[in-house]
Amino acid sequence: MLTLQDIANARGRIDKYIQDTPILQSSLLNNWLGHEIFFKAECLQKIGAFKARGACNAISSLIENNQRPKRVIANSSGNHAQAVAWAASQFGIPATIFMPAYSSSVKIQATASYGAKIELCETRNIADEQVRKAAEENGTYWIPPFNNEAVIAGQGTAAYDALHQLDHIDAVFAPCGGGGLLSGTWLSSSHLSPKTKVIGAEPLNANDAAESLRKNSIQRLQKVPDTLADGAMTMAVGDITFEYLKKLDGMHEIEESRMIYWTQWLSHLLKVQVEPTSAISMEAASQWLSSQSGKKRILIILSGGNIDQSNFLKIWQHNRLDEIPS
Amino acid sequence: MLTLQDIANARGRIDKYIQDTPILQSSLLNNWLGHEIFFKAECLQKIGAFKARGACNAISSLIENNQRPKRVIANSSGNHAQAVAWAASQFGIPATIFMPAYSSSVKIQATASYGAKIELCETRNIADEQVRKAAEENGTYWIPPFNNEAVIAGQGTAAYDALHQLDHIDAVFAPCGGGGLLSGTWLSSSHLSPKTKVIGAEPLNANDAAESLRKNSIQRLQKVPDTLADGAMTMAVGDITFEYLKKLDGMHEIEESRMIYWTQWLSHLLKVQVEPTSAISMEAASQWLSSQSGKKRILIILSGGNIDQSNFLKIWQHNRLDEIPS
Repeated sequence: MLTLQDIANARGRIDKYIQDTPILQSSLLNNWLGHEIFFKAECLQKIGAFKARGACNAISSLIENNQRPKRVIANSSGNHAQAVAWAASQFGIPATIFMPAYSSSVKIQATASYGAKIELCETRNIADEQVRKAAEENGTYWIPPFNNEAVIAGQGTAAYDALHQLDHIDAVFAPCGGGGLLSGTWLSSSHLSPKTKVIGAEPLNANDAAESLRKNSIQRLQKVPDTLADGAMTMAVGDITFEYLKKLDGMHEIEESRMIYWTQWLSHLLKVQVEPTSAISMEAASQWLSSQSGKKRILIILSGGNIDQSNFLKIWQHNRLDEIPS
Repeated sequence: MLTLQDIANARGRIDKYIQDTPILQSSLLNNWLGHEIFFKAECLQKIGAFKARGACNAISSLIENNQRPKRVIANSSGNHAQAVAWAASQFGIPATIFMPAYSSSVKIQATASYGAKIELCETRNIADEQVRKAAEENGTYWIPPFNNEAVIAGQGTAAYDALHQLDHIDAVFAPCGGGGLLSGTWLSSSHLSPKTKVIGAEPLNANDAAESLRKNSIQRLQKVPDTLADGAMTMAVGDITFEYLKKLDGMHEIEESRMIYWTQWLSHLLKVQVEPTSAISMEAASQWLSSQSGKKRILIILSGGNIDQSNFLKIWQHNRLDEIPS
């Protein structure tokens, strides 16, 4: 397992490149719920998501170890694609991203804007196959989205930064896709603040991690899940991340309607763009808080803020702001 | 006319209460346009808009002059309602807000959440009449939305703060409703950075300020304008603000489609919630930049981030993110 020193080293490596994202609060929300809630706004991170941290640490670790790649590659339809494209551009390394053709045009465009070459593939499986083949080329390094220690250490720097600024945090909440963010969050929290609970949130419609924890072995989704939380649609967690996920204090499975509710409310209260994947952590927090006695101080990692137009319409189809959080 | 000292005094008065909002940048946007653009993110201000500054300065000025009111009142359907309710609560002063019944429920609710008493009035005219009547009561102070020196000085602190952080700014852009923000912005800019142009933006569908400047006398809109920029729907500017508006270096009239275009793009690039009223400044900037030679450094005041559900649907009805800014 990684150590706190690994996270600290990652933090040092990525310092020049990433944003020192703010910690936000809503006094209205705190009053309504009767707790103190801190939001680490990774939606204001480079590329609009925490993924910039992991990709940046992965590449700079290679360079530090005199293994500077000639090219980096990745397969992703989402934030990881942008993160690798952006991180590679920071170090002047060419990047090729294999994206399924169904990826949203705005995400393809954003990835291309960072200077990456885009290979559009008919299906996700073809993208997976092509990236594997490309990875065999000499000097090419494939940056995996979560099941990789350098990536995990990078993602862990978000909680690492926040827990250096905040004390007496009772619980930290983060969403679960492949488990990279939660693994890093658990690492930082268990060392910096051992009494703090670390709790995950997953869409009920994509609950492979919760199922895996129940069965104590990695379970794979049978089909592409139907969820607005596109950052948590991963088909299965990894063998490395699963070992960290076992150490969590809970994994909440969140219904789509609650995800939409909190996406609307967090955008409204915090005035930052919150993607549905981030909003599930708030619902998990709300469920956990209602089972607690006494006033709590909690930290929520707002993982990202990338929303495309069709999802905006789905999020705002009905007004949920007439029901005040309680 | 107010002096720089008035703005500095306002800044000192409101310091304990307001947010020190960040200045945001988008490297993608800067690359695409070939200029350096700084955004003062007043959408992250208390109540989600710069209006908190003016309301807070107005009340604290009264207290400083031993004129602490027993009650403050205001008439507004928008950000000013919330600003007065919030500012009054900071000083423990009861507030009553007269709101037209057609105000959006989320704005009524937000205003009430700050502890204000809400008087819903059938029409805007009735609200105006009732607030005038209420203002006659002993100890009651009516905080006007823009045509007031304490309010103008407060709004001017946004540019005051930004111009203390940034140097060599070629132009500052802000939207025009009643002209309070632009008046304060001109004051700060003309003293702190005399060479900087100060340029306003107004919806073409609510262009009373541009009309007033063309005719050199205050023109009033004939009917409630049809625009998504609900913060710039004011029927006429005030006699105090008009004197400042005459000193501006331009007033751009912005079409609804361009407002929607930049609302989508600024939200997408900056990951903060940008209301259409703020986006018009970016279109004005884009027009101005395309008439300039050489690379410019400009400042845009993002006035606020309060958007209700029905406007979200209007903003995101069609995807504008497939047309990259140039």
